[in-house]
Amino acid sequence: MSSPPGHERWSIAEGYIPETGTGPEPEMTSHETVCILNAGEEDANVTLTLYFADRDPAGPYRLTVPARRTLHQRFNDLDDPERVPRGADYACVLESDRPVVVQHTRLDSRQAENALLTTMASPG
Amino acid sequence: MSSPPGHERWSIAEGYIPETGTGPEPEMTSHETVCILNAGEEDANVTLTLYFADRDPAGPYRLTVPARRTLHQRFNDLDDPERVPRGADYACVLESDRPVVVQHTRLDSRQAENALLTTMASPG
Amino acid sequence: MSSPPGHERWSIAEGYIPETGTGPEPEMTSHETVCILNAGEEDANVTLTLYFADRDPAGPYRLTVPARRTLHQRFNDLDDPERVPRGADYACVLESDRPVVVQHTRLDSRQAENALLTTMASPG
Amino acid sequence: MSSPPGHERWSIAEGYIPETGTGPEPEMTSHETVCILNAGEEDANVTLTLYFADRDPAGPYRLTVPARRTLHQRFNDLDDPERVPRGADYACVLESDRPVVVQHTRLDSRQAENALLTTMASPG
Repeated sequence: MSSPPGHERWSIAEGYIPETGTGPEPEMTSHETVCILNAGEEDANVTLTLYFADRDPAGPYRLTVPARRTLHQRFNDLDDPERVPRGADYACVLESDRPVVVQHTRLDSRQAENALLTTMASPG
Repeated sequence: MSSPPGHERWSIAEGYIPETGTGPEPEMTSHETVCILNAGEEDANVTLTLYFADRDPAGPYRLTVPARRTLHQRFNDLDDPERVPRGADYACVLESDRPVVVQHTRLDSRQAENALLTTMASPG
Repeated sequence: MSSPPGHERWSIAEGYIPETGTGPEPEMTSHETVCILNAGEEDANVTLTLYFADRDPAGPYRLTVPARRTLHQRFNDLDDPERVPRGADYACVLESDRPVVVQHTRLDSRQAENALLTTMASPG
Repeated sequence: MSSPPGHERWSIAEGYIPETGTGPEPEMTSHETVCILNAGEEDANVTLTLYFADRDPAGPYRLTVPARRTLHQRFNDLDDPERVPRGADYACVLESDRPVVVQHTRLDSRQAENALLTTMASPG
């Protein structure tokens, strides 16, 4: 592969972790996930910054995506420097020192049957 | 951050607010949302123009997204200069004086279990 | 608006109209829709060509999207030059003589509760 | 058509085939699909490489998409050089010797009612 696919900055405007869920835990817990692919030959050092409606941003959250690996990180599980609030709108900017590909997914299990959404993040 | 992520114009071709919904109000009301991220250091002044199948466009609707904040605006709640019609197809162009990132989401609760869709808007 | 948003060619790789559905007709019939926004000052003349897994393409299907209007066209309703087969994989290329914005949506009502998907088409 | 639409490399960061499903087989089996459109006049030779969280990549998986055809390939059905693991995170890079358009879809039928997600893959 000449140069690895992707970009060094990506943004997600929609973020929302529902406060409640149904179904077996933890697979069916309502959650949002940032899926990061590092197809390159060097580890990618990634930071996430979270933006909110009515307070200052949180972060940086630091992640490493090893070379030739993918990391599907639940926002629910981020807790350093702080936990992501439930039931609150947020958005996210991801910055990496290597090109990565970023996709965003939500499983919403507030009602008996789950719902899914996904989109590629916005590059650049 | 050298320059904030995003673009100054975005379009959404799909718009439709169902006329009915089920579940607890207002969280589970059928709704469409435009999610706007302003990761920059200056407030973004945003206008929305809505397009329809069989009448002239509506708008501009004016929004401000403060610096380093995100705004998740329900189309259901827009009422100046006019309410967004229910049960009618529409589309949307967003223009901003600063780069922003724009994502579109719909929660459809017409049946007992909700359904979700999302996509990044089309930039440029 | 200096130049209208969008592109003159868009592609959708995923197409599939389920053969069955549940719920009130026609609102809840399983359907796929191509949503086209023409935000410009001139009518857009659009053609769709459909591609299949195991036969030659169908089309062109001809549509007009008036200036400053949106058209949400169900693939289910296309019948000239031929009806779109149910239960078969297809894909679509849209070409327009003016810039338009194109988004693809499916409502799947094969089971009791509906499911939704959407994405911007691929430009260029 | 002057040059066929699409790109020669696409990436999908989100991949996950649930281990269980409900509803009639095989239509309602939980599955992920890569939808490839080759609108050009020459066959496209495609390879997929799959990336995981904690092991080396798998592949290449080889596919041919004939000229002016679409191929909707379930990841579930790939088995050469190896089967795609269920219940595990993965990601995918697609490379083609001709321009193609690539879209990713998941049907999740772990609960009684199905859920759908889709997005265009990330080009370039």
